[in-house]
Amino acid sequence: MFEHELRVRYAETDQMGVVYYANYFVYFEAARTEHLRKLGISYSKLEKMGFFLPVVEAYCRYKKPARYEDTLRIRAWIGEVKRRTFKYHYEVIRDNELLAIGHTVHAFLSSEMKLIEIPEWIRKILEKER
Amino acid sequence: MFEHELRVRYAETDQMGVVYYANYFVYFEAARTEHLRKLGISYSKLEKMGFFLPVVEAYCRYKKPARYEDTLRIRAWIGEVKRRTFKYHYEVIRDNELLAIGHTVHAFLSSEMKLIEIPEWIRKILEKER
Amino acid sequence: MFEHELRVRYAETDQMGVVYYANYFVYFEAARTEHLRKLGISYSKLEKMGFFLPVVEAYCRYKKPARYEDTLRIRAWIGEVKRRTFKYHYEVIRDNELLAIGHTVHAFLSSEMKLIEIPEWIRKILEKER
Amino acid sequence: MFEHELRVRYAETDQMGVVYYANYFVYFEAARTEHLRKLGISYSKLEKMGFFLPVVEAYCRYKKPARYEDTLRIRAWIGEVKRRTFKYHYEVIRDNELLAIGHTVHAFLSSEMKLIEIPEWIRKILEKER
Repeated sequence: MFEHELRVRYAETDQMGVVYYANYFVYFEAARTEHLRKLGISYSKLEKMGFFLPVVEAYCRYKKPARYEDTLRIRAWIGEVKRRTFKYHYEVIRDNELLAIGHTVHAFLSSEMKLIEIPEWIRKILEKER
Repeated sequence: MFEHELRVRYAETDQMGVVYYANYFVYFEAARTEHLRKLGISYSKLEKMGFFLPVVEAYCRYKKPARYEDTLRIRAWIGEVKRRTFKYHYEVIRDNELLAIGHTVHAFLSSEMKLIEIPEWIRKILEKER
Repeated sequence: MFEHELRVRYAETDQMGVVYYANYFVYFEAARTEHLRKLGISYSKLEKMGFFLPVVEAYCRYKKPARYEDTLRIRAWIGEVKRRTFKYHYEVIRDNELLAIGHTVHAFLSSEMKLIEIPEWIRKILEKER
Repeated sequence: MFEHELRVRYAETDQMGVVYYANYFVYFEAARTEHLRKLGISYSKLEKMGFFLPVVEAYCRYKKPARYEDTLRIRAWIGEVKRRTFKYHYEVIRDNELLAIGHTVHAFLSSEMKLIEIPEWIRKILEKER
């Protein structure tokens, strides 16, 4: 199970004294990027090749708040892989507590920003990892 | 139908040249706050009274990208009101195009950060607005 | 004197209960963009023409904290215009209180991201506004 | 020399394809926090003791842009320590390139948000580290 560890920054808190809800999606992205890089799919390189993977759907369910200076582990794994989209799942963990769960769905775009099928070599990597 | 208008800031874009996906949740919050204020429920005042309304669930579906300097209208309306939580729905519009839809679910917390029932006077306002 | 009005978002606060210090630079950018647009220099259009105006220097002095739901007026005016760079000054005002002052210095880059001289038609607009 | 390493997130880029200028101040804060923790001054604990260290001045000079997925090292060290304020200096490094330099000045506030003298035990730590 892939885990990305990060420390909560002051910038990410709000005046309720907890991590602002939109920032969990930033954490998801950080974990997803690191996971893809580990699989040999650097997102920077994908963009240089002319592929873009915009988020078409995002969801998070918040169970317990994360706080400043917390060390969080963001678990990320690949879900369903369709012809033109694929799904990522996430869990946010502090020590052994589950703070939040979520998912994102990603489309594949060409450099002209048109929806395309997932290239075969990437599909193989994604499906192998599921 | 309540609408909050805003202009996309450079800070809110990413290197894909569009608004970063997590920022839609910031836009939702801006619209929700303005809507609640219009209903006579200033969120600042709620916090001073000892109530907190954390997000327990957030969702967004992205249809078309918003871009820098776009003028966006964020529609916000109240959905289901339960004993301890209530729902907000959103649409992000540019001109007559629907760019994104989403929702958030909010809990009611006391100043000790305990889940409580929605106070009667607030429930009345929320239900009347539905 | 140009002023851009904005309302502080919850996202922009931190757990000290005030606006996080880096967000003043986002406010500066929002005011600068609106000011340039008013002068007939839409930053989106500049980028489409192949010009980029990155910040090469940024400064802010914080006097009093801005808070959630505050209505702030961001004053912005053009300072020194050199061959390749120009300066913007800012004040952050709430009611009649001065909360912060700052400045940014901007370079002019070509589409190849090379430092160039400020185009004559833009220089004229900037200098006239000083 | 203390260095905090971080990877640039997609969220931190803007449509110029580089890190948005305000985010360097977030990086400064991340480095400062880790440095203080290493010195035995956890900022979370300081706040629980009733001390706040707001930024009263912030400066950054940008030399070369940082980009998505870059690994950056943020150097942080303590500058002048006065009765009520102290200074932090920063450098942002990628490989052996200096991308940016900056500083912040911090005041000491009591839990009533009043300016106070730096407590003796903290002054000792800060001055020893200079």
